[in-house]
Order: sequence, then C-alpha cells, then structure tokens
Amino acid sequence: MKHSLNKESLDQLFREARTYNAFAEREVSDQVLKELYELMKWGPTSANLAPARIVFVRSREGKERLRPALAGGNVDKTMAAPVTAIIAYDERFYDLAPRLFPHYPQIADVFVNSPEVAESTAFRNGSLQGAYFILAARALGLDCGPMSGFDNGKVDAEFFPVSKRLERSVTEVKVEGRIKSNFLCNLGYGEAKGLHPRLARLSFEEVCRVV
Amino acid sequence: MKHSLNKESLDQLFREARTYNAFAEREVSDQVLKELYELMKWGPTSANLAPARIVFVRSREGKERLRPALAGGNVDKTMAAPVTAIIAYDERFYDLAPRLFPHYPQIADVFVNSPEVAESTAFRNGSLQGAYFILAARALGLDCGPMSGFDNGKVDAEFFPVSKRLERSVTEVKVEGRIKSNFLCNLGYGEAKGLHPRLARLSFEEVCRVV
Repeated sequence: MKHSLNKESLDQLFREARTYNAFAEREVSDQVLKELYELMKWGPTSANLAPARIVFVRSREGKERLRPALAGGNVDKTMAAPVTAIIAYDERFYDLAPRLFPHYPQIADVFVNSPEVAESTAFRNGSLQGAYFILAARALGLDCGPMSGFDNGKVDAEFFPVSKRLERSVTEVKVEGRIKSNFLCNLGYGEAKGLHPRLARLSFEEVCRVV
Repeated sequence: MKHSLNKESLDQLFREARTYNAFAEREVSDQVLKELYELMKWGPTSANLAPARIVFVRSREGKERLRPALAGGNVDKTMAAPVTAIIAYDERFYDLAPRLFPHYPQIADVFVNSPEVAESTAFRNGSLQGAYFILAARALGLDCGPMSGFDNGKVDAEFFPVSKRLERSVTEVKVEGRIKSNFLCNLGYGEAKGLHPRLARLSFEEVCRVV
C-alpha cells in the first residue's frame, strides 16, 4: 500500500515550485544531469517508445550557438543559466520498437502508415517526457525555467542537422530533420531575486467535472 | 537550499511506478480527485494559460458512454478501473489570459492571429499538464494507467459537445469543438496482477548529449 509523499516533498514538486529566471553561480555537474535522466526515463509513454531527445547546453560556446534563436526577453536569463536543456523529440521514434516494445514491434507500422499519427504521438509523448524532466529536476532539488519563446527552426538547424552524433547514436539512420525541438528549459539552483509574483490558477470546478 | 527527495519518494514517483492494468476495488473519492487537481494545477505552462480540462469518468453510466470509443484491448481494464480521466485541452485557452496572465493579457493576440501556434501550444501544454496529472497522482499514492488507444472523435462528440457545462463554467463562450481529448488515464489503487514485465529504457548516452 503506497501513501502520499510528505508535505515538504509535495511542496517542492508542486506547491512551492516556481519558474526561475535567475540561478546561483553553481555548476550543474554531469553526474546530476545523468541522475535527472535516470529518473525521467521511467515516465510512461505510448508503447514505451520514448521519443524525447535532450541536448544540455552548458558551455559558453554552446550558449552562443543558442543565442540567435532566443526571443528577446529570454536572452539574458538563458545565457546566464548554468544549463539550458533543449527538450526535443525524434520523429522516427518508432524505429526503436524492436528494442523498446519487443513483444509487438509491429506497432511501428501504425506510425509508418500514418505520418500524422506519428507526428502527434511524438509531440504528445515528447511533451509528457518534458514534464517528467521538469518534475524529476525538482525532485532532485534543482529548479527549472521552461520556455517556448525561441525560433524552433533555428535551434533545429544548429543542433539537429543531418548526421549529427545524437542521431547516429540512437539508430544509425540519418534522415534530415528527424529531431525537432519542443521547448527549452533553463536548469540550475534557483535564486528568488528573479521570481515574478505567483499567478492565479483555475479552480477544480472550472477545469474538472466528475461524471 | 532544496535537497533531493528521499529514495522512497523517488521510487514511488519514477523508479518503481508502473502503468497499471488492474486496480483494487476501492473507490477514489471526490476528495482525492480534488487533491490531485490541487497539486497538478501548479505545474508550469506557457504564459500560465493552463489549457488542460479533465473529465473524471467514475459512474457506471459514464463508463458506458466511454465504452464505444475504446480500442478493443482497452475496454475491459477501463470499464473495471475505479476512475478513467479524460485528459483534454481547451483550444480557446487564451480567452482566460486576462485572469491567468493579467500583466500582459495581449499575449492572447499571438494565438488569435495564428491558429497553428494556438493548436500546438494547447497540445504541448495540455500534454505537460497530463504528465503533471500522472505524477501528482503517484505522489498521492494513486496509480495510473494512461493510454492513447481510443477514438478521439467519439470521445469529443460524447463528452465535449456544444454548450456543455464544462465549457460554460470556464468562459461562457460556446463554440463547437473547443475542447479536444488528448489521452485517457485509468486511476485507482493498482494491483500487481495486471502488470506486464518492465520494458527497457534508452541509455543517457543515446538520448542526451552535453555541449
């Protein structure tokens, strides 16, 4: 029988977590990035096909490659963040069905036969994994600053061109434009100075009904 | 300074959490459904516009309305689950900008002027909120069985027709087809008997790179 997590944990994950715009000058180590992935990877996805791909932009050089794609209001905070994760997804996620869904690898045919279903499945599940990423980061004591204000085409051209390592490492198939950026997420140890006032949320009655 | 949650909490949220196909015969109360929403509502969304809308299908009558939309393999487990949540999103989510993003309600113009951006924003953020839902449920000691195997058009026609209460309660605007189903999630207190073997996940090196 499982129980609710304690109050402090629920606060850290949800009730007191905030979108941070400023972070302490403290490095986020390779070890922490691995711990983060090793948690988020367990979140459920359709047929376990886990389309998310992630680039952690941490170096000065990497940040400069990202800069031209950022919306004006996101430049300074992103350049200053310890890490900016590019949360992306692989449009050919279903190539991995023999490994990830071995009892019924023919599931891939659904996506081969309908590019529209493939695209919506990649986007839905890549987004679910983006949320697992945010909550796994918070669970580890990190803070996030997710954002959509950037030029996806520029990020994709710079970080996901043909034949780059990320593509090769997964399937050895090289197809232009298979990996698409979804959203960006600054990552680090948040500082209160950059916080905006907490915004309102809709009530249960407005969002939910029970039938 | 925040710290990592303890091992048991990380296990419950991620490492030992599973997609359940069978649940104990134990009711999920109104109070628990409210607690779940009151956690998940805090998860971040673009411009705080929170497009997710949820129908908790709990009654026998509600389940029968859902039945014709379910893929064959999902019928029995869904009919037997204590609750099936329809995770949906409101395509007119930006109508709420004056309340949810009051310092810059003009953000709504971005979506009014580009139906394509509105649609992708609703789908991305509605999916993020779907993942917040799953992890909030697990945080409260509940178990989930999320699934995409159903006919979205049938669910929308049955649960989100014109002028239904869910729409009125939010904005008083009644436009056909504003609310669209995203995925379904069975909810309850999981029983091990329905579990499939744990499937593989991709390694850090396959999914991530650090630049």
